[in-house]
Amino acid sequence: MEDLIIDKASPATRTIAAVKKSTMKALVYYAPGKKSWQEQPKPVIKETTDAVVKILKTTICGTDLHIMKGDMPEVASGRILGHEGVGIIEEVGSSVSNFKKGDHVIISCVTSCGKCSFCKKGMYSHCENGGWILGYMIDGCQAEYVRIPYADNSLYPIPAGADEEALVMLSDILPTGFECGVLNGQVKPGDTIAIVGAGPVGMAALLTSQFYTPAETFGATHIINSAKENAIEKIKSLTDGKGVDTAIEAVGLPATFELCEEIIAAGGHIANIGVHGKSVVLHLEKLWDRNISITTRLVDTVTTPMLFKTVQSKRIEPKKLITHRFKLDEMIKAYDTFEHAAREKALKVLLEN
Amino acid sequence: MEDLIIDKASPATRTIAAVKKSTMKALVYYAPGKKSWQEQPKPVIKETTDAVVKILKTTICGTDLHIMKGDMPEVASGRILGHEGVGIIEEVGSSVSNFKKGDHVIISCVTSCGKCSFCKKGMYSHCENGGWILGYMIDGCQAEYVRIPYADNSLYPIPAGADEEALVMLSDILPTGFECGVLNGQVKPGDTIAIVGAGPVGMAALLTSQFYTPAETFGATHIINSAKENAIEKIKSLTDGKGVDTAIEAVGLPATFELCEEIIAAGGHIANIGVHGKSVVLHLEKLWDRNISITTRLVDTVTTPMLFKTVQSKRIEPKKLITHRFKLDEMIKAYDTFEHAAREKALKVLLEN
Amino acid sequence: MEDLIIDKASPATRTIAAVKKSTMKALVYYAPGKKSWQEQPKPVIKETTDAVVKILKTTICGTDLHIMKGDMPEVASGRILGHEGVGIIEEVGSSVSNFKKGDHVIISCVTSCGKCSFCKKGMYSHCENGGWILGYMIDGCQAEYVRIPYADNSLYPIPAGADEEALVMLSDILPTGFECGVLNGQVKPGDTIAIVGAGPVGMAALLTSQFYTPAETFGATHIINSAKENAIEKIKSLTDGKGVDTAIEAVGLPATFELCEEIIAAGGHIANIGVHGKSVVLHLEKLWDRNISITTRLVDTVTTPMLFKTVQSKRIEPKKLITHRFKLDEMIKAYDTFEHAAREKALKVLLEN
Amino acid sequence: MEDLIIDKASPATRTIAAVKKSTMKALVYYAPGKKSWQEQPKPVIKETTDAVVKILKTTICGTDLHIMKGDMPEVASGRILGHEGVGIIEEVGSSVSNFKKGDHVIISCVTSCGKCSFCKKGMYSHCENGGWILGYMIDGCQAEYVRIPYADNSLYPIPAGADEEALVMLSDILPTGFECGVLNGQVKPGDTIAIVGAGPVGMAALLTSQFYTPAETFGATHIINSAKENAIEKIKSLTDGKGVDTAIEAVGLPATFELCEEIIAAGGHIANIGVHGKSVVLHLEKLWDRNISITTRLVDTVTTPMLFKTVQSKRIEPKKLITHRFKLDEMIKAYDTFEHAAREKALKVLLEN
Repeated sequence: MEDLIIDKASPATRTIAAVKKSTMKALVYYAPGKKSWQEQPKPVIKETTDAVVKILKTTICGTDLHIMKGDMPEVASGRILGHEGVGIIEEVGSSVSNFKKGDHVIISCVTSCGKCSFCKKGMYSHCENGGWILGYMIDGCQAEYVRIPYADNSLYPIPAGADEEALVMLSDILPTGFECGVLNGQVKPGDTIAIVGAGPVGMAALLTSQFYTPAETFGATHIINSAKENAIEKIKSLTDGKGVDTAIEAVGLPATFELCEEIIAAGGHIANIGVHGKSVVLHLEKLWDRNISITTRLVDTVTTPMLFKTVQSKRIEPKKLITHRFKLDEMIKAYDTFEHAAREKALKVLLEN
Repeated sequence: MEDLIIDKASPATRTIAAVKKSTMKALVYYAPGKKSWQEQPKPVIKETTDAVVKILKTTICGTDLHIMKGDMPEVASGRILGHEGVGIIEEVGSSVSNFKKGDHVIISCVTSCGKCSFCKKGMYSHCENGGWILGYMIDGCQAEYVRIPYADNSLYPIPAGADEEALVMLSDILPTGFECGVLNGQVKPGDTIAIVGAGPVGMAALLTSQFYTPAETFGATHIINSAKENAIEKIKSLTDGKGVDTAIEAVGLPATFELCEEIIAAGGHIANIGVHGKSVVLHLEKLWDRNISITTRLVDTVTTPMLFKTVQSKRIEPKKLITHRFKLDEMIKAYDTFEHAAREKALKVLLEN
Repeated sequence: MEDLIIDKASPATRTIAAVKKSTMKALVYYAPGKKSWQEQPKPVIKETTDAVVKILKTTICGTDLHIMKGDMPEVASGRILGHEGVGIIEEVGSSVSNFKKGDHVIISCVTSCGKCSFCKKGMYSHCENGGWILGYMIDGCQAEYVRIPYADNSLYPIPAGADEEALVMLSDILPTGFECGVLNGQVKPGDTIAIVGAGPVGMAALLTSQFYTPAETFGATHIINSAKENAIEKIKSLTDGKGVDTAIEAVGLPATFELCEEIIAAGGHIANIGVHGKSVVLHLEKLWDRNISITTRLVDTVTTPMLFKTVQSKRIEPKKLITHRFKLDEMIKAYDTFEHAAREKALKVLLEN
Repeated sequence: MEDLIIDKASPATRTIAAVKKSTMKALVYYAPGKKSWQEQPKPVIKETTDAVVKILKTTICGTDLHIMKGDMPEVASGRILGHEGVGIIEEVGSSVSNFKKGDHVIISCVTSCGKCSFCKKGMYSHCENGGWILGYMIDGCQAEYVRIPYADNSLYPIPAGADEEALVMLSDILPTGFECGVLNGQVKPGDTIAIVGAGPVGMAALLTSQFYTPAETFGATHIINSAKENAIEKIKSLTDGKGVDTAIEAVGLPATFELCEEIIAAGGHIANIGVHGKSVVLHLEKLWDRNISITTRLVDTVTTPMLFKTVQSKRIEPKKLITHRFKLDEMIKAYDTFEHAAREKALKVLLEN
């Protein structure tokens, strides 16, 4: 494609030694159900704290499907989607000091300015100048290039020789499962935990819960209303009627959250990860005296450095979550696969440039 | 009264130097709305770990009113109510080693065996052999004498010269406000907190929140549906639209809990103290990404020693919560006053023997 | 042996249907270097909270060797040593409710009354009525029977089918390595840790540190003065000059503690486990601005239930620490082996009844 | 002064409408014992993340006296001292977004880049690009103007109407006393604490310890070797022989640190604040089984926002620490007063522009 552009260029242009690419391919959202893998302007540095990153590997998140379904009408038509990936620094703004052209980086799904009151307390998700904006409020990673604001705080370095496939999981799902599920759920050695939901984030919670060596991990994967009674009974019987120490909700539906209310032990923790579109019923008439905690959280990605160390030292292998691999140019096919995750037995699809 | 009994005794009995009282006066619950201040058998040691305590001062709790209203049908007819008080040890079982006859003690509302798995982790409220049973499952403190199981763990010593009126507040409301409200609400220096509910437990939360030096404490005291909007708006405007760091629910109604959901800041904590009879609506569609915690707790009274030290060193004056004083024999009158707390401007009523 | 005694008994005694054994074999300490495996009176219930336990398996601790060397002159001549073991309840006092004759139990090295101020805050090591007394201030476990005070709080139940060899490690070394080393050392996923000392407790720290998934664990096992420089250099070079996040001292010598001071990273934690006989030099002139913590701790055994769950669920295999097995009657031989641990390559020796 | 310079300028210079001041007065350190209040070049923006701040109020720290005594030979001759103050933003670099010319700010003694691994975990003291450099490695605040690197992270906004005298205490001594002493010392409601050292930082620890409502606070202010025995005895007798829950060392000498070792209760915390020039003796032979923690810390100033809120809400009045007030031009006189703090009964001296 770039060749074509250059071929059509005037002789004057040809004389320029290094012709800069000025367009790229990207996945553009137009409206619910309408997307296109198409030519777009290549992003450029806008602020001195920006970096432009060439995407090496990216993926598709359940949230991207929500956007495609129209669940997030705030997403503008023409937006490039995607908030996960690893890449190579193409260019940095004048204030960026942690990275330089050629560095390999993990792109965090959460943009952090590092200097607002929320960032200073490690709550990057609520960054006054960032938060989750990538592939949502600003153009994202399902493209050949992406502009990353506040690059020093929003990118993480990848040393030579690291397994970059595994590190794509560090953009979002691993910190999400770990922070919102495992840390908020206060998993401790010897605990019993239930993970309600077996999608990528539920599996990431399962993987990272192992950091704290629970005794037993139950999965409640195919919960439907008719089966609910059984899931509760089964978990209760497996825990001598006590329920689980930690219940991690990784679905986002009233039925699955309310299941967590029923299986939680006295003194236990319900850690919500799911993105909920509706309110749920909180049975305080049963729970007021049960000494439980319920937490919500948008991932802060504040544990990315910790998670990176565990991946580098092979203590977890997040690569196992990748079920399908595509070329970056096969983006539409990859979406099709992920949209039929159950049929395709897909957890995470990987797209490589 | 006891004199009369002795007067009527046979000469043989009269020869016994110290005739033991075998009956006492107590507040007996019969049925919703039916109670009596009447002669009852004086309690005796049943287990080697028991103590019998002569009540010096006791009080009436909102929970007692709930029982009287019939909200707790599990309470047996004939039960002596009351779970708060200070007294003098009358007799101890053979295994009791922390106390002896004549010691002054605080009676904890929660009975703790000290040797089950819950007690070992400081969760006395769920003690497998105790928990909240006093004046509920076993006879309680609104009487001249009370039997306290597991006395070594369920009573706290009062040194000579302590202000015993203040210490009655340590039986229940101070640890309840502190543990369920302040500790679970993670109050920190400089925080803004809202206490929803201005009854005795809400006031206890207010008093003990001062241990952690919040910057601002808002009270939402007269919340009714029609006024709800205003309370929210007012708190939001007082916090620059952010909401409060900690919201303590000390009422037990859906409207007040849901108010807490609306005024909580991102990263904040809703600490429920209220006894709820109905489920509430949890707006996860608004809260899932707000990084909040919601906690429930039946008081463990695990902080009683800490609270005792703060009272002894005059760092708080819980005595201020006492609005009315009665003789123990005026129990029915005290109930009448407390049942009309709003009219009588009553917070805590104190009954003295 | 018991039969012989009975045979010699007078006819009057013979008429008793069930002649109770009244003596047992035990390891008695007399003076530094002087011990004997000999007949002793079998222990009896002294307090209502006592249990007498028949030893099934026991072991020898480094501390026992210290006593034998005379490092602990406070140990009385005639004392039965040993503070580790599993056994069967032989008899319980009238107040014991958690156990009954025939129950299999883990004996905790720390005796906890469950009702003093230290026990109530989980600091059993400083129990006002117990602490470490077994095989030290009172007769211990290197015997056929042992009396355990405060049995409800100082014993832990073993369900049928559990691996009792592994559970002997729960009496002391596993909670010691875990509480004093791993918990106090605040080991976190991805951390680098150094364990200085490769004896049984150091190995227990190594095993239990895995609960928190450190990235790298270094061992400094054969540290002698001449080699000290190299150990420091090696660890520094392995950590890019930063030092380790957690250094666990499991020896008890000035040289090894001071080694920890040199290898600790800024923000790191030195967790002392070693029993020290001398003061050490604390280089505050280097450390005052390094944001480190140093902790000391006598094991509280407050994590025994947690550790039990991890052993039961096969998350750790403490049995691997057992290098030698003996019959209980081979006690002297077992001591000889353990006294020459280096030569014998012994970590833990197991004695079975 | 500036006028003189302009007066001497050539007519060409005079034609410039707004002649920028290019020099200022500053306290310059030359060598141990040699300093001068003299004309220096006014600082200018060097990096896009810098701000130049006009000093409104500043002060002198004990550390400045250490530098003057030659205890810190790493300080270059010609260095402007001072790391505390409030001021007005004079100019900001192009990347600074939190502040603009005219904003009133607190200058933190610790410079934080906000984007290195230490800053990301709130350990600003060890910032790879900052830390304590102000008035030490780079020119400081005892001047009319100061350049502040990483202004967005190293300055804190002062709203209109705030008491700026009080806020000078937030540059260093309040966070130092609070973070290194109170937080590291884990002060809790009802605790007993001893603050060893009654200089400004000790007093700041005293003030901020009140945030957590200790029961008793002991001060050991005039400790000399001969008096040491008495201090220990007195504190022991005041605590029923137990010692204190928290001992805060705010002197920096072996004798005072070792005093803390003697007065600490089992389970207690020794929090070192003092700057030590020599090693101390750590009596592990007494402390190994006492379950204590010892911490060191260079202030991170990570609590400045929290402290600010407590000052704004009048929960503490750090202004009380100011004993002497001078004009900025009286710098030498102020040094003279502070160098004779005992004689002058000086805690903090304030210099105002």
